[in-house]
Amino acid sequence: MTPASPTSLSRDVLEGSRKALAQAITLVESGTTADRLKAESLIEHILPATGKSIRIGITGTPGVGKSTFINAFGSMLLAAGRKVAVLAVDPSSTSNGGSILGDKTRMTDLANNPNAFVRPSPSRGVTGGIAPRTREAVLVCEAGGFDTIIIETVGVGQSETAVAAISDLFLLLVSPGGGDDLQGIKRGIMELADIVVVNKADGPTTDLAEQTAGDYRTALHMVRPKHPGVTTEVHTCSSTTTQGVLEVWEALNTLHSRLRDSGYLGQLRATQLKQGLTTELQLLLFDQVLSQPAFVSERERLEQAVANGRMSVSAAARALLQTANLVR
Amino acid sequence: MTPASPTSLSRDVLEGSRKALAQAITLVESGTTADRLKAESLIEHILPATGKSIRIGITGTPGVGKSTFINAFGSMLLAAGRKVAVLAVDPSSTSNGGSILGDKTRMTDLANNPNAFVRPSPSRGVTGGIAPRTREAVLVCEAGGFDTIIIETVGVGQSETAVAAISDLFLLLVSPGGGDDLQGIKRGIMELADIVVVNKADGPTTDLAEQTAGDYRTALHMVRPKHPGVTTEVHTCSSTTTQGVLEVWEALNTLHSRLRDSGYLGQLRATQLKQGLTTELQLLLFDQVLSQPAFVSERERLEQAVANGRMSVSAAARALLQTANLVR
Repeated sequence: MTPASPTSLSRDVLEGSRKALAQAITLVESGTTADRLKAESLIEHILPATGKSIRIGITGTPGVGKSTFINAFGSMLLAAGRKVAVLAVDPSSTSNGGSILGDKTRMTDLANNPNAFVRPSPSRGVTGGIAPRTREAVLVCEAGGFDTIIIETVGVGQSETAVAAISDLFLLLVSPGGGDDLQGIKRGIMELADIVVVNKADGPTTDLAEQTAGDYRTALHMVRPKHPGVTTEVHTCSSTTTQGVLEVWEALNTLHSRLRDSGYLGQLRATQLKQGLTTELQLLLFDQVLSQPAFVSERERLEQAVANGRMSVSAAARALLQTANLVR
Repeated sequence: MTPASPTSLSRDVLEGSRKALAQAITLVESGTTADRLKAESLIEHILPATGKSIRIGITGTPGVGKSTFINAFGSMLLAAGRKVAVLAVDPSSTSNGGSILGDKTRMTDLANNPNAFVRPSPSRGVTGGIAPRTREAVLVCEAGGFDTIIIETVGVGQSETAVAAISDLFLLLVSPGGGDDLQGIKRGIMELADIVVVNKADGPTTDLAEQTAGDYRTALHMVRPKHPGVTTEVHTCSSTTTQGVLEVWEALNTLHSRLRDSGYLGQLRATQLKQGLTTELQLLLFDQVLSQPAFVSERERLEQAVANGRMSVSAAARALLQTANLVR
């Protein structure tokens, strides 16, 4: 990438350069120590210009029509004069996920609009987990003038929690269909949701979508309300006819204002930042220790001892950190 | 707890004392530094007596009948002369999970058998995550003479991955029912599964269970096989009539032998231990740093700066670790 200084890069981001925006996100996602120091400097520069967007996390299982929904939802927001950034968190670092390139091609209306910015997931192997870097990408987009940030993730494993930890509001997108799908695995996700949206409320699945919405309303009574005294809304919509999409936005926007005015949003973001600090401390600390040469060779030796069953995991961990003079 | 020395406690565990077994597991789950050092000593003592069991991870959504299945499955193993330990990993540290006490009361046949040992999830707030401690609990049970270790978890979030990381084989228990339930969220879990078992193949749901099994067989063609060249088996069974339960065990046992003979199992366990070492290093390192007094007060100060938006998360993390002389 262009060796722009963090100062000039942050200035270009603040002036609205898309090229600088993309470069800045690449910088925050970079795994090298040199880039990390630059990224930290960049973030410091843009920090005062951040925090003014509405940050919406969106999750849904593969096949639910997430890209199509985001395309319809984002287009409606663009028509209303908003600037929309879409960031993806792909948890499938070890599995054969296929959404990386697919997103942009399925969100054609957004990808081609100057007021929208679509960024696929960072490449696998980003040092230290993806969510902390996505949190910084959100800040970069806000500094670039985007007032609506959509952070999407596929509903697998821990990625919803990671996305919820950097979002103001969390939208769960589901397909028409019922029964077992409502219980179990999704219960944890339902507790994260600020709104549930049943997609594909069109054509032959219109009735089923309404019925599914009813099922979710019932199911939501069985989980703790996310906000005390606020019933989690369940909507139906069609990403193809766009019917109901505006209502989803209105519900989110109303809830966002309400949470902001009550002080909840400020508290939520403060809590998220504190949690982010804990994660960052772990990552940074571990990176630094791992890179010490004495540690690297000793680690290989003890790793073998552990793998051969000659030493326990915890004894090896303690011995290793004692080598590096890091624990008593 | 009784202040038994790690040496005498490990001797009692190895001699088959149930009381010592329970105490040893409490010790490995303890969060205090003193107990951690004792636990490490205990594990070192018992290490040569570990590793000889078959470790079976079991997951399934709430309501699928996990406890009933484990009760039937375990009773069948007891009748066949095996010694069965059941450990639970409950990921719901923040949600209102209710399985903690429920398990033991639902597994009455196991709970009352001298050759079985049922251990509910560790209490919330165990320092440094539950899975590393459960890995040690597995070792304690093996040292206590248990040849079959069942590690169960509810299908929420990252707990399956954690359980798969300490199991030889992973069993996914599902309910009769189909459609959307097969796709999406469970895809990641299906990739972890060595065997899929459709429960409740009895009474009015017999046919539906068979049909669901067929659906899973189809669905499994869409995910990577866990073991190259080995098709993941899908079974039906009834935990109430026990029909099919023996076949599940035979399939697991055959696969376990096959994986052991091919050298895969040895490699898997070595890899798991190496990953365990990484996790343990992170936990231990972070614990040690967190406990430094200079760090604690500085952390509070910088946490406030971050929460107020005056400082970025990554700059604060770096500044904190510089305070503790831990990073450059």
